[in-house]
Amino acid sequence: MTIVTKLHSNSVPTCYDHRGEISACSMDYLSWLLAKLVPVASDPEAEFVRQITLFALLLCACIIVGHLLENNTRWMNQSITALLVGLGIGCFILITSHGKSSHILEFKQEFFFIYLLPPIIFNAGFQVKKKQFFRNFLTITSYGVFGTLLSFAIISFGASRLFPMLDFGYLEIKDYLALGAIFSATDSVCTLQVLNQDETPLLYSLVFGEGVVNDATSVVLFNAISNFDLSDMNYYTALDFAINFFKLFMLSTFLGVCVGLLCALIIRLLKLGSSGQSTDHEVALMMLMAYLSYITADMFALSGILAVFFCGIAMSHYAWHNVTDNSQVTTKHSFATMSFIAEVFIFLYVGMDSLDVAKWRFIEDSPGKSIWVSIILLVLIMIGRAAFLIPLSCLSNLTRRDSNERIGFKQQFIVWWAGIMRGAVSIALAYKKFTGSGQTIQPANALLITSTITVVLFSTIVFGLLTKPLIKALLPESSYREPCSPTSSMIPLLEDGHDDDPETGNHRTLRSRPSLKMLFRRPTTTVHYYWRKFDNGFMRPVFCGTGSASDANGTRDMDAVY
Amino acid sequence: MTIVTKLHSNSVPTCYDHRGEISACSMDYLSWLLAKLVPVASDPEAEFVRQITLFALLLCACIIVGHLLENNTRWMNQSITALLVGLGIGCFILITSHGKSSHILEFKQEFFFIYLLPPIIFNAGFQVKKKQFFRNFLTITSYGVFGTLLSFAIISFGASRLFPMLDFGYLEIKDYLALGAIFSATDSVCTLQVLNQDETPLLYSLVFGEGVVNDATSVVLFNAISNFDLSDMNYYTALDFAINFFKLFMLSTFLGVCVGLLCALIIRLLKLGSSGQSTDHEVALMMLMAYLSYITADMFALSGILAVFFCGIAMSHYAWHNVTDNSQVTTKHSFATMSFIAEVFIFLYVGMDSLDVAKWRFIEDSPGKSIWVSIILLVLIMIGRAAFLIPLSCLSNLTRRDSNERIGFKQQFIVWWAGIMRGAVSIALAYKKFTGSGQTIQPANALLITSTITVVLFSTIVFGLLTKPLIKALLPESSYREPCSPTSSMIPLLEDGHDDDPETGNHRTLRSRPSLKMLFRRPTTTVHYYWRKFDNGFMRPVFCGTGSASDANGTRDMDAVY
Repeated sequence: MTIVTKLHSNSVPTCYDHRGEISACSMDYLSWLLAKLVPVASDPEAEFVRQITLFALLLCACIIVGHLLENNTRWMNQSITALLVGLGIGCFILITSHGKSSHILEFKQEFFFIYLLPPIIFNAGFQVKKKQFFRNFLTITSYGVFGTLLSFAIISFGASRLFPMLDFGYLEIKDYLALGAIFSATDSVCTLQVLNQDETPLLYSLVFGEGVVNDATSVVLFNAISNFDLSDMNYYTALDFAINFFKLFMLSTFLGVCVGLLCALIIRLLKLGSSGQSTDHEVALMMLMAYLSYITADMFALSGILAVFFCGIAMSHYAWHNVTDNSQVTTKHSFATMSFIAEVFIFLYVGMDSLDVAKWRFIEDSPGKSIWVSIILLVLIMIGRAAFLIPLSCLSNLTRRDSNERIGFKQQFIVWWAGIMRGAVSIALAYKKFTGSGQTIQPANALLITSTITVVLFSTIVFGLLTKPLIKALLPESSYREPCSPTSSMIPLLEDGHDDDPETGNHRTLRSRPSLKMLFRRPTTTVHYYWRKFDNGFMRPVFCGTGSASDANGTRDMDAVY
Repeated sequence: MTIVTKLHSNSVPTCYDHRGEISACSMDYLSWLLAKLVPVASDPEAEFVRQITLFALLLCACIIVGHLLENNTRWMNQSITALLVGLGIGCFILITSHGKSSHILEFKQEFFFIYLLPPIIFNAGFQVKKKQFFRNFLTITSYGVFGTLLSFAIISFGASRLFPMLDFGYLEIKDYLALGAIFSATDSVCTLQVLNQDETPLLYSLVFGEGVVNDATSVVLFNAISNFDLSDMNYYTALDFAINFFKLFMLSTFLGVCVGLLCALIIRLLKLGSSGQSTDHEVALMMLMAYLSYITADMFALSGILAVFFCGIAMSHYAWHNVTDNSQVTTKHSFATMSFIAEVFIFLYVGMDSLDVAKWRFIEDSPGKSIWVSIILLVLIMIGRAAFLIPLSCLSNLTRRDSNERIGFKQQFIVWWAGIMRGAVSIALAYKKFTGSGQTIQPANALLITSTITVVLFSTIVFGLLTKPLIKALLPESSYREPCSPTSSMIPLLEDGHDDDPETGNHRTLRSRPSLKMLFRRPTTTVHYYWRKFDNGFMRPVFCGTGSASDANGTRDMDAVY
């Protein structure tokens, strides 16, 4: 059979036999099926095009199936659908290719960090309910910092004591520390899918906010593992560690906020909205500058996640009010769409990739050990999470005078439960740590990779599926919708300028001038008072060109308007 | 100086000296400057992050500078700004790196075809004024098919006669044919920037439509050059060629329209708009399916450009009316934004890449020859374009009874002028043809690459800059705004259901029942009558769920509403 060459390709047409091709190139079965249909030469570019086509097709299928399941069942969501579709397709390819391969296309792990993660985190910052986030800022930070450190310590210590009993190969102290860091990285992406910001604002902001701060901690941890000699840990190194973390946290946040403010200023001063193609220019600039904040932070060895998250917050608070109405709708929905596509992409890929035979072959003779390692890791994650959540929540409750605001036992349980899920971040980090140039070499490393995959799949599917029913069972609708509204009408909170009613909200806040006594009694209220004054008096006039939050522009709430 | 490692990287920290590093890795100067600021290990991933950061920064700069220039001068546009910024930065890097390099990051040519071109062409189809496009469909097709073939023949023949006189190396007959194909590929991307759809709808649809059809022809040409033995060209091979073209054209269009209709059907039947995250799901599905049409066509060796263009038309005619209001705004503007970013990206990259020293080094001893080759090619392009434009336009005018509709001499001149620009497509094809795995080997090939760059830069900058003033000079505002409106109120055209006034438009069309005599006198009018009947009676009820164009949903015009 004579085959015509591919588009724009000038290679000589070849005759080939498909059976011969599949054995030579170890092609995937689906690609092989397509090869029967599609008469193209077997050059790498054509192969890549075929893989991309299949992947795009699967993404579409995931969205459609996910939508149907989400509407007809109460348990499913898009992430888990994509994960299951990926697993199903992986199984199909695995069976039909006689155990040769399980995925359509292979990406480097950097692809995840450079292209897929930024839109998800930026969108989360852009759409986050700022009032809730900042009200719980101290709790979130303590979860993200001390919680992650405690988790890290417990997992590392536990693994170093328990793994030698299984006798599957020698691991260095650095490997145990890396394991601790990998499994203390909460998966913010899955949280976004499982928890609903409108239904459970407090839980959402706690779990998601923890995930964002967690990233900054894990960067510091990784740098620390590489740079510090942890055998002679003393007060000095601990202090150094703390200073490093504080610097990183502040610099990342500062960078993100600065980029967001710069974007607002550019759009305002250049009057981008005045030209014909205004919307395109505005949206393009916001997109690119958001990405810039992430990648710049990454370049300077800061936390990109933290930077792009705060850039999203700054953009939605200032830049969003400077653009035209059409741009407001477009940014709100196109950022959400990009984030959505990236999420489905990640889970689909993880689903397919988790069946990759190359990774499982190394543990053929010891499947029991892999299961034991997974169970140990999962139990350590649970213990580590409980160990910081309960004390920190109790501590946080001590500072909350209003009983409605306290994090009750049931809520603690849900925060604990939802945060156990480990996702693409853990897998990507595990690959980075335990594979040398894409290939697993040592049996012990291969075992850790497969165990990571098992933990991620199990936690995402089981904990992900059960979170919604759990919330329904523990917190009946009437109780979990409340915690945010009643308190916000009783005391003025660290709320966002356009989150509240312009008249009542402003008067309420500005009427009660805080005293020094107030500062100690209600620190957030006082901080909020000065922040609002500063925001209305200086920030908004400079970055939005409007006097105060009660201006026509300032009162538009993203969620209320569109 | 001890350097800390990059985010999530577990490599051992190394000490290095920047001077040593730059000589070892032949790093770009800007990156080197950054290396002074940014303490990261010199692993390839960190290097890539640094390159992406710089490129994102330049993209932002291009948008801002382009916006300022576009608003303050009458000649400039975003493409030319990006090209000039790219050239400027390229110069800067070239000088400061002492002639070692000129670009920040290097992409494979496939990157252009797989990622950057689809959003541009899809957006063009999505936003094209369908009335104008279909009214001139025959003319556009004849330009795109016969025009491209004639251009190809003239350039190939002229080059094969004139180049041997310059004596710069031996070229095969296939090389000359490839040259013809490369330089008969009109640059649709640049046309979109230089011509304005609202100001000169006729010219825009002619030049841009030609560019789209041109792509289908060039695919057939490339396949033909590879597969046919052109030394014994006879009636049979010519017929084969024609059948091949017709098949390709029809299949690509069919594929694009089918995907567009399928998308409309899925959105309608699944009621994607009913769930909470409706807009994200709808927009994501439209985006992915549009991309699917391009990449599937590519996979089946069809014309991806043609497919995604017609997919865009079908989506804007059917799918767009099934989605929520927010999705309508979001799709319209986010597709335009993505297209805009891709355009700026391409021109910025071409600007930087055109100064790449590796390509120019081969012609150091014969710069005169490169200039002569460029001049010959440019003259051949001009002759080839004139050779088909004048006869085909005259032929087209014979079928137009209304003198307002005819393509006058001045308009022919502008179509000729605007279509001379060659762009990224030509450069990408030239690289594919004349470089083996990214490196130019033969001096003759290197000369052709540099000549292609020269022709592209010269034609884009000179012809691009002068097009707007030329249109202003030849067609004063009063005359060039008219040709579309008056005719459309006199005879019912092949207009789009939501392009016209719902009441008058429908009554007008359906009142005058065409006869067989009409079919010969006014073929488009008759075709249009039956199409409208079919569209309102079958297509819209099935794919939009609305009875006719006069429904509340059907009458919304994308341009009028948002």
